[in-house]
Amino acid sequence: MSAAPERFLGLVGQGVAAIDTPALVIDLDAMERNLHRLADWCRARGLRLRPHAKMHKCAELAKLQMAHGAVGVCVQKTGEALALAAAGVTDITITNEVVDPTKLARLARAVRAGGTRFALAVDSALGIERLAHALAEAGVRAPGAIDVLVEIDVGHGRCGAAPGEPAVALARAVASHAALRFAGLQAYHGAAQHQRTPEQRRATVARAAEAVARTRALIEGAGLAVPLVTGAGTGTFVHEAASGQWGELQAGSYLFMDADYAANTADENAPGFEHALFVKAQVMSRPEGRAVVDAGHKSHAIDSGLPRVWLPEGLAFANGGDEHGVLHGPALPALGETVWLVPGHCDPTVNLHDHLIGVRGGLLTGRVERVLRVDARGALD
Amino acid sequence: MSAAPERFLGLVGQGVAAIDTPALVIDLDAMERNLHRLADWCRARGLRLRPHAKMHKCAELAKLQMAHGAVGVCVQKTGEALALAAAGVTDITITNEVVDPTKLARLARAVRAGGTRFALAVDSALGIERLAHALAEAGVRAPGAIDVLVEIDVGHGRCGAAPGEPAVALARAVASHAALRFAGLQAYHGAAQHQRTPEQRRATVARAAEAVARTRALIEGAGLAVPLVTGAGTGTFVHEAASGQWGELQAGSYLFMDADYAANTADENAPGFEHALFVKAQVMSRPEGRAVVDAGHKSHAIDSGLPRVWLPEGLAFANGGDEHGVLHGPALPALGETVWLVPGHCDPTVNLHDHLIGVRGGLLTGRVERVLRVDARGALD
Repeated sequence: MSAAPERFLGLVGQGVAAIDTPALVIDLDAMERNLHRLADWCRARGLRLRPHAKMHKCAELAKLQMAHGAVGVCVQKTGEALALAAAGVTDITITNEVVDPTKLARLARAVRAGGTRFALAVDSALGIERLAHALAEAGVRAPGAIDVLVEIDVGHGRCGAAPGEPAVALARAVASHAALRFAGLQAYHGAAQHQRTPEQRRATVARAAEAVARTRALIEGAGLAVPLVTGAGTGTFVHEAASGQWGELQAGSYLFMDADYAANTADENAPGFEHALFVKAQVMSRPEGRAVVDAGHKSHAIDSGLPRVWLPEGLAFANGGDEHGVLHGPALPALGETVWLVPGHCDPTVNLHDHLIGVRGGLLTGRVERVLRVDARGALD
Repeated sequence: MSAAPERFLGLVGQGVAAIDTPALVIDLDAMERNLHRLADWCRARGLRLRPHAKMHKCAELAKLQMAHGAVGVCVQKTGEALALAAAGVTDITITNEVVDPTKLARLARAVRAGGTRFALAVDSALGIERLAHALAEAGVRAPGAIDVLVEIDVGHGRCGAAPGEPAVALARAVASHAALRFAGLQAYHGAAQHQRTPEQRRATVARAAEAVARTRALIEGAGLAVPLVTGAGTGTFVHEAASGQWGELQAGSYLFMDADYAANTADENAPGFEHALFVKAQVMSRPEGRAVVDAGHKSHAIDSGLPRVWLPEGLAFANGGDEHGVLHGPALPALGETVWLVPGHCDPTVNLHDHLIGVRGGLLTGRVERVLRVDARGALD
């Protein structure tokens, strides 16, 4: 689906009132302030910024981030990497394991095609063997044709090799293949992102940093350089940065900021981020005592909680199912009135939409500046 | 996106092993048994069946249902209705309110274009006025060009006019417009679908039936015929049928059956339905004590609970975030092995996928018979 659908045709230049509902709207002014705040913060500290594009899945935004200081972007899926590469993104790290031969074959063909530098995380000898085999099958023979990061589990309990010797063995295995460049360690603690207090997050990242330092020392002791440690997210990056262990930060949600991240108590000296992503909804039923809007959990993800009602103020959002939200409050909006919601979690919310509507000049009086395609929406593979 | 993506090309005729993960797979044999069971059950009782296509969003499946006894299908959204109509579905009821003039204008143009019979639910005088205005603007002048159902709130507490006099006033308002045919009442109790015991569901539907009977009598007393009462879902339809008030049933999930509906204690004499929708996933990381699969809540909705692990048996699924699921159990599958999941809730799960892979002959030894397009995926408007 390359063209905007009928309901978004001719929207550029019109006022926000013309945006059909439900729609996912970016406040471009707020987004750009977020964009610059993190880029400036990283630049001032000599840290590489590689934002996670699994959040927005949009090549145009990836390129905007790279035009403003990012060295590249991250994704989680082969399909996301290939969609963004096809749309011209030139530096992509898959911060996740890929062991399926058919996916590795697709990735190897993209490496051979050139134009984009890829990196991939590994946490198994089998994954490394299969990656090397796929590259060979695709005829990729250039030394270091792909960057490979050994992922270590720094406490999140999902993917990743155990820190220490198991990671050393994998680093050696990577280095044994000429087409693979051992690029360092992937170390991300997902659960830490949503610990609510700075003290909790600092303590969790301190333990992660110990695991990183120990593993790095062992790998270097084995005679392999560790060029980079990459990881961190919007909730914790100040702590990874302060540890001195990470050279590259992977925050993604900072660009849009969702209700869940906003529920964290902020770290001192952290750059502040504003909500820049909203679901525009509309009251479509107005029984006594409630207002029902036309946005349910097919319009916004609820894995990290229900959306917050941004405007009008003072309203509570209750789950109305797949296609509805039910509002309660002292001053309910009338039938047909617009309601703006802040999604609980931006990543899976964006994945429900084919387009993002970029508004300049604020939600109330702004105009549509552009319609962005969510290039990797539904790229699950 | 009309064509299947690269990863599904050439799949028809191949064994299930060739299906790239994660993918949404239909067990066609199980689905067809579900299809016939409900159609036969309704036919034996002289009830109309109008399955809810908000569940599968797929024109090919809507046509299959209509070829096996359904009078048409339901949807919740204008965009769903237009997508299915464009793909050749000829009888569509929007069981939801539409008050937005731009959406009503799109619907009116589709009414004018012909080829599909539409019905729409209303619960406000403003909605009725705007619908009549949109039809007039589109030049639709045929008497009864669209069916209009007055929705009453039978206890769910979402949309719908109050039963009794408010509904009578709306029925009169509908009948005052020549282009609108008053087609009866829409009466659906969503919350009742997931009450776990037959006794709870019977009691809830009994109260709903009282509201329906009272409202119908008042409307008939006002001199208007009530041609039809339509509603019910997979969890409760035996009770709506038994009440004698409903003439048309809107069950949708019966075709695929999800884990949430399967958690209901079944009604006596109800047809049994089998799980027919599965997420095919793959182990992509295998740390000590757990197996991580490549399907998270971007692959399956979690609003009604996490997916159940269908095969291999004996495994528990823990939420691994957007792109991962974490399996625990005594006999964990190896890296690269296939895992089959039953989604908690089929409707929003289907909405995450562009295609459904239809398999004949079972999940383990079957072959891909067809790749179905989810025509109305993302049709949020």
